[in-house]
Amino acid sequence: MRPEACRVRIDLSYDGGGFSGWARQPAQRTVQQVLEDALTRVLDRAGPVQLTVAGRTDAGVHARGQVAHADLPAMAWLEAAPALLRRLAGLLPPDVRVRRVAPAPDGFDARFSAVSRRYSYRVCDDVTGPDPLRRHDTLWYRHGVDVGAINEAAGLLLGEHDFAAFCRRREGATTVRELLSLSWARPEPTVAEATVVADAFCHSMVRALVGALLKVGEGARPPSWPAQVLTGRVRDPAVPVVPPHGLCLEEVRYPPPGQLAQRALATRRVRPAVAERAPGEPPPG
Amino acid sequence: MRPEACRVRIDLSYDGGGFSGWARQPAQRTVQQVLEDALTRVLDRAGPVQLTVAGRTDAGVHARGQVAHADLPAMAWLEAAPALLRRLAGLLPPDVRVRRVAPAPDGFDARFSAVSRRYSYRVCDDVTGPDPLRRHDTLWYRHGVDVGAINEAAGLLLGEHDFAAFCRRREGATTVRELLSLSWARPEPTVAEATVVADAFCHSMVRALVGALLKVGEGARPPSWPAQVLTGRVRDPAVPVVPPHGLCLEEVRYPPPGQLAQRALATRRVRPAVAERAPGEPPPG
Repeated sequence: MRPEACRVRIDLSYDGGGFSGWARQPAQRTVQQVLEDALTRVLDRAGPVQLTVAGRTDAGVHARGQVAHADLPAMAWLEAAPALLRRLAGLLPPDVRVRRVAPAPDGFDARFSAVSRRYSYRVCDDVTGPDPLRRHDTLWYRHGVDVGAINEAAGLLLGEHDFAAFCRRREGATTVRELLSLSWARPEPTVAEATVVADAFCHSMVRALVGALLKVGEGARPPSWPAQVLTGRVRDPAVPVVPPHGLCLEEVRYPPPGQLAQRALATRRVRPAVAERAPGEPPPG
Repeated sequence: MRPEACRVRIDLSYDGGGFSGWARQPAQRTVQQVLEDALTRVLDRAGPVQLTVAGRTDAGVHARGQVAHADLPAMAWLEAAPALLRRLAGLLPPDVRVRRVAPAPDGFDARFSAVSRRYSYRVCDDVTGPDPLRRHDTLWYRHGVDVGAINEAAGLLLGEHDFAAFCRRREGATTVRELLSLSWARPEPTVAEATVVADAFCHSMVRALVGALLKVGEGARPPSWPAQVLTGRVRDPAVPVVPPHGLCLEEVRYPPPGQLAQRALATRRVRPAVAERAPGEPPPG
């Protein structure tokens, strides 16, 4: 980052239904492309804006608490700042909303400083189908699911493990992750919702975990099964990867300002930066 | 109703965004048309199914607790009943869901037995706009609104009044309604939601009430203003009719089974049945 540059943190939400995921791809509508283009236009003297994101969500995956950063020329930022949120609100399509743009604390990196990501996955298990108004962010699962059995199975997956069994493998990248929390509840009588927190996720990990747990929930597999699959350390074709539209990135957590740079260094050691924009790399989430 | 006929009560939900309202209209996609066609197909020996509905929602208005009835040949009903919900769930498009179909108690009429309708209206008053995943059922209001001031104004409208000031007038139809409840709350920090209950609503009444109250909420009018408009008994052009997509029919209430027929008779006396399918009649709600 040049000395006259200012790093800003951007908090945003999107409906993933109309996007081919976060990451820019030629001839595809992606969140990164739409947002970078809008920021470049609003900060018109800054040159092309480039974003680094906390969670590179897959096609169709939503976000309510996505975080990105950009390095902007300090002058362009100062000029644009007062009207920035309002101008972005008018310029962006209604399926992407920028909630906040603010100078980032020293050492902040949206991706590498993050200590955890929280996702939700919404499932309707009613025979008549999901609320039409929530059908775009709710999976219709045609079997009734037992949330108690799911939570029993989920508890056995917590902690640091090699999650290769639930990930799409990628050359040279670790699949070791720390699953901090995984619990299901019923916010409504016909809706079961998973809350999943990990330091980070590899590609399709949440959707494979949810797929395995739903098999337990419908009674097709015992609660011990997902943990058994985990110990196998290879993708198990018996684990279904559920569709993206039930999944939403709810929150990214960062350490206190004084520990941001240290955390970024530690993360880079385990998950090297070179993977960040590897060509053709499938996004995680 | 013929003696061999069986009246069934149908509970349903829909996303109004893809419909030109409830009521059948030539060359339009309406909820009534989609649902009658599906029922006619599933009850294939019953002949064309005709529905009577509790709340004839306008184009773009949603429902979570809509109620209708149909009179079916008893044999066709008995044959179809066991698989009916599952078959409708598969046959209907995902923007309409039938939650329940059951024989109606004696004297039940979805429209005329109802004692009250409850609607919600969702407004986001955040400068950055509504949650992208809820933008289809949330109005983006670009002024911050004071829910306390709105509730003060709302309290002055309760009771039985001639709501002509908030209705589109219709020849020979009364605009006297009893407003049973009208209160606003914040289910989320950036969302204000109205809950409105009345014995019945005339056309555009909820949307005009919400429009007037939002003017109070943003501070453009004093809390006494909507009640002043009410006493004028003529449509006031200063009252904006808010868009339909924030509005949802949440619930229709009926009296205990023993009082259904009596209630239907009493309602018919005030709001004659002839208006039910008057050609070109705009739907209420």
